[in-house]
Amino acid sequence: MLTSGMISPEKCCRFTVIACLLALAGLRVVQAHADQAQSQPATTAPPSILDCLNAMIGGGKSAWSDEQLHTMEKLRDKAIQSDYAYEELRHLTANIGPRLSGSPQAQKAVEWVADEMRKMGADVTLEKAKVPHWVRGVEMAELTAWPGQAQGTKQKIVLTALGGSVATPAEGITAEVVVVDNWKELRALSPGAAKGKILLFNRPFDRELAATGHGLEAYGGSVVYRGAGPIAGATAGAVAVLVRSAGGGDYRSPHTGATVYAPGVTKIPAAAVTAEDAELLKTLAREGEVTMHLTLTPQTLPDADSYNVIADWKGTEHPEQVVIVSGHLDSWDLGTGAIDDGAGVAVSMAALELMKEMGIHPKRTVRMVAWMSEEEGSEGAAQYMKDHATEMGKHAGAIESDLGADHPTGIYYAGKPELGQRLRPVAQVLETIGAGSLVNAPETGEDISGLTGKGVPSFAPIQDSRFYFNYHHTAADTFDKIDKRHLNENAAIMAVLAYALADEP
Amino acid sequence: MLTSGMISPEKCCRFTVIACLLALAGLRVVQAHADQAQSQPATTAPPSILDCLNAMIGGGKSAWSDEQLHTMEKLRDKAIQSDYAYEELRHLTANIGPRLSGSPQAQKAVEWVADEMRKMGADVTLEKAKVPHWVRGVEMAELTAWPGQAQGTKQKIVLTALGGSVATPAEGITAEVVVVDNWKELRALSPGAAKGKILLFNRPFDRELAATGHGLEAYGGSVVYRGAGPIAGATAGAVAVLVRSAGGGDYRSPHTGATVYAPGVTKIPAAAVTAEDAELLKTLAREGEVTMHLTLTPQTLPDADSYNVIADWKGTEHPEQVVIVSGHLDSWDLGTGAIDDGAGVAVSMAALELMKEMGIHPKRTVRMVAWMSEEEGSEGAAQYMKDHATEMGKHAGAIESDLGADHPTGIYYAGKPELGQRLRPVAQVLETIGAGSLVNAPETGEDISGLTGKGVPSFAPIQDSRFYFNYHHTAADTFDKIDKRHLNENAAIMAVLAYALADEP
Repeated sequence: MLTSGMISPEKCCRFTVIACLLALAGLRVVQAHADQAQSQPATTAPPSILDCLNAMIGGGKSAWSDEQLHTMEKLRDKAIQSDYAYEELRHLTANIGPRLSGSPQAQKAVEWVADEMRKMGADVTLEKAKVPHWVRGVEMAELTAWPGQAQGTKQKIVLTALGGSVATPAEGITAEVVVVDNWKELRALSPGAAKGKILLFNRPFDRELAATGHGLEAYGGSVVYRGAGPIAGATAGAVAVLVRSAGGGDYRSPHTGATVYAPGVTKIPAAAVTAEDAELLKTLAREGEVTMHLTLTPQTLPDADSYNVIADWKGTEHPEQVVIVSGHLDSWDLGTGAIDDGAGVAVSMAALELMKEMGIHPKRTVRMVAWMSEEEGSEGAAQYMKDHATEMGKHAGAIESDLGADHPTGIYYAGKPELGQRLRPVAQVLETIGAGSLVNAPETGEDISGLTGKGVPSFAPIQDSRFYFNYHHTAADTFDKIDKRHLNENAAIMAVLAYALADEP
Repeated sequence: MLTSGMISPEKCCRFTVIACLLALAGLRVVQAHADQAQSQPATTAPPSILDCLNAMIGGGKSAWSDEQLHTMEKLRDKAIQSDYAYEELRHLTANIGPRLSGSPQAQKAVEWVADEMRKMGADVTLEKAKVPHWVRGVEMAELTAWPGQAQGTKQKIVLTALGGSVATPAEGITAEVVVVDNWKELRALSPGAAKGKILLFNRPFDRELAATGHGLEAYGGSVVYRGAGPIAGATAGAVAVLVRSAGGGDYRSPHTGATVYAPGVTKIPAAAVTAEDAELLKTLAREGEVTMHLTLTPQTLPDADSYNVIADWKGTEHPEQVVIVSGHLDSWDLGTGAIDDGAGVAVSMAALELMKEMGIHPKRTVRMVAWMSEEEGSEGAAQYMKDHATEMGKHAGAIESDLGADHPTGIYYAGKPELGQRLRPVAQVLETIGAGSLVNAPETGEDISGLTGKGVPSFAPIQDSRFYFNYHHTAADTFDKIDKRHLNENAAIMAVLAYALADEP
C-alpha cells in the first residue's frame, strides 16, 4: 500500500501514532519541532500523512509473501509454547555444568549438542579450533593488617581470579593495598606509590545506568578496568591487580571475566573483588595501611583442541547460502553458564528444532553454530572466519544471542538502514510478543563480529539487560535465572528471523 | 480531649478516616460489616463518632506533658540528622569485622563498645557470660557422580556449615544424596531410604510472602528445617544433612545459622546449600543417583568467657529503674554483621548519644545493652536474667532492634493492649517519619524474650523485612546494605521510645 519506498518506517516511528494524528489534525509536527530548535533548520520535508500511516500500518512492498508471513506467525506461536529450549538448557547447565574452554565439560557439551542436532536431522560438522585452556586454582585473600584490627585476627576478602590470570607463588604474596577509583587517580599517584603493592581499581559498576536498561553501557564503563587493569598496574610497578567486579547486584558475588596482558609488560596476578570488598578496602585504606595476603593459583595449560558445532538445516533451493543462528557454548566456570550463554545456544538449537517440528524447509540453509571459547578470545569464531574465508558472500545473515534470556524487545541489526526497513514485516510478526523494535547497531554479537566486518548482515535479539549484569560471570549464573516465557520469546526471534532471511526471495 | 479511656486508638485505626467519615455521613459501618458476615453477630457497640475522631486526633489524657512530647520531637529530628549510628556501624563492621561468639573480634567489639560508651559519659559494666565458641573450618562439596556427567568431571555445590555443626572426617565423606522437600516427604520415604545417605531438606523460602512484607513468617517456615533437620536426618539414618538456605535472594548465597542436636541422637554434620544448588540437586536426583563428596571441618571449642556490654545513662529520680535499649553484638562470620545485628547495637548506642548531645536526663536509667551470643543460644541474655533476677520489677521496659535497619513503620509491643493505647502520643511523634504504627505482638526480640516472659513491657521497631532475609546470615550482610536515613529512623524510635518510657511520670 506504500506509494513509494522513500519513507523509512523508523522515521515514521519517531513520530508515532500521536504525531500522525496531530498531522491529520492539521498540525505540522516537523515544522514545530524545527521551530523549537532554530539552529537546526528543517531540511527534510515531512512525510505525507499517507506515507506515514502506510509505513506504520506496514502495508506496501514486503519481501515476503502472505504465506511466508503466516509461516513466521506459526513459528512464533510454536516457539512460545515449546518446552524444547528450556529443557535443553536445563540439561546443558545441570547435567553438563560449567563449560570453560578446553575443559572436559566443554568437550561433553560439544558432543551433546552435536548429538541432539543429529538426532533432529541436521547435518552436523565439528569444526576444530585451538582454544585457551586456563584452569582456576585456589583463590584466597585476607587482610592481615588494617586500622582498628582486633589483635590476631584476619579479615576475609571475597574475590575470584580473572580469566587468563597468572598465579601468585603457591604460598601467596603479602603486600599493602593501594586503592584508586579510576585511571585519573592512578595517574595522580606519586611516582612509585604502587610499586610492590597490590593495586585495586575501585571503579563502580553504574547500577542506575543498568537499571534504566543500559546494561551494556554500564558494563562497558567497568570492563575496561578488568581488561587493561593488569597492564596498567604492572606498568605502575604493582605486584598484583584487583578490580572491582564489573557487574551489578549486591550479594557479595565476584564477577570473573577475561583479562589481557601485553608483550613486554610483566604479567601480574589479577582478580576481581566484590563491590562490598572494594568498598571495605577503600574505607580501611583511607584510614591507614592495609595489608593483604593473596593467593591465586590458576594454571594456563597448553591450548586445547576444541570445536564449533555446526548444524545445517539444509536449504531447498540454495543450500550453499547460509543464515547463521548462534550462541556460544563455552562459559565461565563459577556458575553453570545459563544466561551466558547456554541460553543463546538453546534458542539457536530451538530455531532448527521448530522448523523440523513444523516441516519448514527454507530456500537457504539455516546453520546453527555453537561457538567455542567466546569468553577467552573468540578463537572458535576466528577459526570459522579462516575456514570459511571464501564463503563470505554466501552468508545471507548471521544472528547471535549473547545477552541473556530476559524479555527481548526486538532486533539489533548491523548493516545499512535499508536492512531495517526491509525487516519491518518481520518485526510486525514479532510485535505480538513485544519484540517489534528494530535498532541499528554497529555490533551485534562478539562471535559474529568477523562476519559483520565482512559485510554480512548481522542480528541479535535486544534482550532486557537490566538484571543481566547482576549475575553475569558469577556463581549465580544458573538455570533458575531463566524465565521460560522470556527464553521462548528469544527462541521465537531466532526462528522467525532465521526463516525470514533464509526464505526471502 | 478524649472523654473516656475506653476506645482503643488501634480499634479506631481499623476503621480509618473513611470509616469515620462514613459514620459521620450516617452509615453504620460496624453494622454493615456484621450484616455481611452474618455468622458473626456484632457484639460490640461501635465507638461513637466523637470517641473515634478523638482517638485519631490523639487528644485526651497523655501520660506525657507537652514539654516531654516536644523533647521527643527534638530527639527524633536530631536522630534523623545524625552521623553517629552510621559511623559507629561502619567502624564495627569494617574495622572490627565479623563477631562470632567467643572470637577475638567479638572481644574487640565488646571493648570498643564499652570504650565508646565510657567516652560518652555512661556508666559501663561488662557482665560476664559463658558463650559457645564454634569455629568454621573448611567447607567444600562437590558432586562426584550424577546422570549425564562428563567423564572425569565434578560439579561444585555451594554450601556453608550450620552454626554448631559437627565435622565430617578431615578427608570428607562420600554418599548418595536423597532429596525431600519437607517433613511429609521424609515420612513418605521407604524405610532405610536415607540410611547412610546425605539428606537434603529442600524446603524453599517463600519469597512472595517475604516480598509482601511478611519476612519473619517466610523465615519461620524455612528455619524449622535448619533447626530440626539434623535431628530428623540422624533419626532416619542419614550421615549428614543439608538444608536449603532459609533466606531469599537468588545470588547463590548460602545462609548459615544455628542448628541443634538432641541428647541421644547422633550428631551429624549439617550445612546449608544455596537455593540454586538445592534445585540442581533435586533436578539431578530426579534423574538418577547423585553422589556427593562433602567436607566440613568446623570445631566446637570449650565455651569462652565473653560479655554483655551494659551502659547506663543514669536516671535523675529513679536511677534504679531501667529502660533497656539493645541489639546483639555477636554476628555470624560470613559477612560483617551489619544488618544482623550491628545496626541494632548502633541505634541503641545512638539513643544514649543523642540524650547526651541534647543534655537529656530522664527520670529513669536508660540502659544500653549490647547482648552477646544471640546467634548461638542467647547465652548473654540468659545470663542477664540470672544476674538481674531480683530486679525484674525495676525494668520499666526493654527494646531490642534485631530485624535489620530498613525503614521502620512503627513499634511492636508485647504487653497488654492498654500499653499500645498509652503509647499513642509517642507513636504520633514518630508518625512524621513514617513510624507511627503500634502493633501488639507476642514476642519482640530474642534477647529480651526472658524479660517479656517476666512481664516487662517489651518493644521492637517494626522494620521493613522485605529484603532483610535476602542477606541475613550470608556473606553479603555488609555495611553497604545500610541506608543511612533508614538507620536513623530506627535510632529515632529507640531514642524517642526509651525517653518516653524512662521519663513517664
